[in-house]
Amino acid sequence: MTETIKTDVLIIGAGPVGLFAVFELGLLDIRAHVVDILDKIGGQCAELYPEKPIYDIPGFPVVTGQGLVDNLLKQIEPFSPVFHLSRMIEKVERIGDPLFRVTTDAGDIFEAKAVVIAAGGGSFQPKKPPIDGIAAYEGKSVSYAVRQMETLRDRSVLIVGGGDSALDWTLNLHAVARRVTLLHRRDVFRAAPHSVEQMRALVAAGKIDLCFGQVVGLEGEDGMLTAATVREDSGRVYSIPVDHMLPFFGLTMKLGPVSDWGLDLHNGELVLVSTETFETSQPGIFAIGDINWYPGKLKLILSGFHEGALMAQKVHRYIYPDKRLTFQYTTSSSSLQRKLGVL
Amino acid sequence: MTETIKTDVLIIGAGPVGLFAVFELGLLDIRAHVVDILDKIGGQCAELYPEKPIYDIPGFPVVTGQGLVDNLLKQIEPFSPVFHLSRMIEKVERIGDPLFRVTTDAGDIFEAKAVVIAAGGGSFQPKKPPIDGIAAYEGKSVSYAVRQMETLRDRSVLIVGGGDSALDWTLNLHAVARRVTLLHRRDVFRAAPHSVEQMRALVAAGKIDLCFGQVVGLEGEDGMLTAATVREDSGRVYSIPVDHMLPFFGLTMKLGPVSDWGLDLHNGELVLVSTETFETSQPGIFAIGDINWYPGKLKLILSGFHEGALMAQKVHRYIYPDKRLTFQYTTSSSSLQRKLGVL
Repeated sequence: MTETIKTDVLIIGAGPVGLFAVFELGLLDIRAHVVDILDKIGGQCAELYPEKPIYDIPGFPVVTGQGLVDNLLKQIEPFSPVFHLSRMIEKVERIGDPLFRVTTDAGDIFEAKAVVIAAGGGSFQPKKPPIDGIAAYEGKSVSYAVRQMETLRDRSVLIVGGGDSALDWTLNLHAVARRVTLLHRRDVFRAAPHSVEQMRALVAAGKIDLCFGQVVGLEGEDGMLTAATVREDSGRVYSIPVDHMLPFFGLTMKLGPVSDWGLDLHNGELVLVSTETFETSQPGIFAIGDINWYPGKLKLILSGFHEGALMAQKVHRYIYPDKRLTFQYTTSSSSLQRKLGVL
Repeated sequence: MTETIKTDVLIIGAGPVGLFAVFELGLLDIRAHVVDILDKIGGQCAELYPEKPIYDIPGFPVVTGQGLVDNLLKQIEPFSPVFHLSRMIEKVERIGDPLFRVTTDAGDIFEAKAVVIAAGGGSFQPKKPPIDGIAAYEGKSVSYAVRQMETLRDRSVLIVGGGDSALDWTLNLHAVARRVTLLHRRDVFRAAPHSVEQMRALVAAGKIDLCFGQVVGLEGEDGMLTAATVREDSGRVYSIPVDHMLPFFGLTMKLGPVSDWGLDLHNGELVLVSTETFETSQPGIFAIGDINWYPGKLKLILSGFHEGALMAQKVHRYIYPDKRLTFQYTTSSSSLQRKLGVL
């Protein structure tokens, strides 16, 4: 049985706004765990535009998405946040006042006194290939992410795609799997040239297989794949025997299960919050950053920072109902400076 | 007669929040002039803690007050704000809908469609020495700042104080004034050691006078000084003939004339604003940063940045009532990138 992870606050979303929330909570002695659906920290900044310059973060004439994330990670280091990546929140249940039990699709169980949704445009979810009957195999022998390489040991794995994820997993898994086959529509890859080179070397050495075409059908039973039917551009159809398929067709953004948590929404898609506390219509559940809405809302990273600061004040009242909160400045408070490890 | 300076927006306060407001307005093609009571840009950050580290600016694990100001100045460079320093706003009159005429104690007259108060804790105002009858000389032969050195040419100037302002003006004015006398309570100076050294060299060379004691009385008529009466710690009293006195006793913060502009206040000291637009109870007058109040308000620089971004949207409706505003990101909008001069 999975052990329950107890924490003051569970933050959903490891983008810049979720990261800075760790800082604002930390200044008030509130510890946080952070869950993200991506396999890396940084949200859209790291996933969609790591190298793109951003010009409107106050104090940075220019900073890249990844640069901002790196700076924020350094800034929150003193508060030792715990990250749980590559998992999606499945359920948020209220079990106390306030106390929440939160479960993920990776089987984690969290108990937290407050939940902070900092999920940006929603969850990044894998684009699914349009193959008839694929749903029956999902979660068993078709998956869109690799959580533990061990589960693929000695399996025949078909990796589908031509981007970085497809190539990275081809290179990582060939040493663990019985056999890795990489399938891409044509012999042109978007992935980093260095990865493509490494992949071609493995193909040349006979260690992996490279095929071209599209999966048009699946064979197997009880959710367990036995083969994939592939059609080449030329029209030729053939079958590849496989135990497991990993399609990497990129990501799409969806609000995801947040829409099922009983929160009042604006236009059915953004979470309504108070501008005083950034609490949602459910006491103890907060929403900050691009996922929330209030009159005047702008989807700016800098607004998410402000929202996190005000949110932390109300969370403090939940975590320490009897403690009076005195507002202090990092510039002058030696108590805050000790927490930051600079005194 | 002074020429009226016409601008889209007049920003009162050149601290970090006022500076970033220039950026948010600039992205929307709104030009701004900035007025500050201090003789330098940066507000409290530059005046009170230029060298002190700040830890809670998002994305900066640590930054000094001056470092933050320097970064912001670089960030707003593309929008060429015009700064008017060392002046205090005296009057804000509504002369249109919306159109304001704003006058300063230095005689400037501005006409602006919107006024943004970003005055922090209020105006820094000089601490006045407790000398009977000093008010009669203020503005004529006693002043607390030097706006134009030329007005002191060939005058006998008494500078009172031992900090940086007193020493800096002693060093600057001795070449212009007929004679400069520096008076400080005792022979210990808080000013930068290098300035103190330079001052002592001028004293040794007979170019300026250095006296000790406190001013206890003033002589003169019609506001024109002729002499200052000084008492030494020993009890000895003597007279120094002077045309002009400059007391530099530090600064204190006051809300200042903002309290007379007919704005709704919170607890009589902070300006009430809407969290949608950061507009005050007077349409066309906005307040951002430490000077405003709304439920949940925290006096954080990062909140002032957010407030400035939302304020700019409403100001856009005043400046361009017929233009539809499409929200754009600096990361992806080539139109914004052209404004920033990076494309």
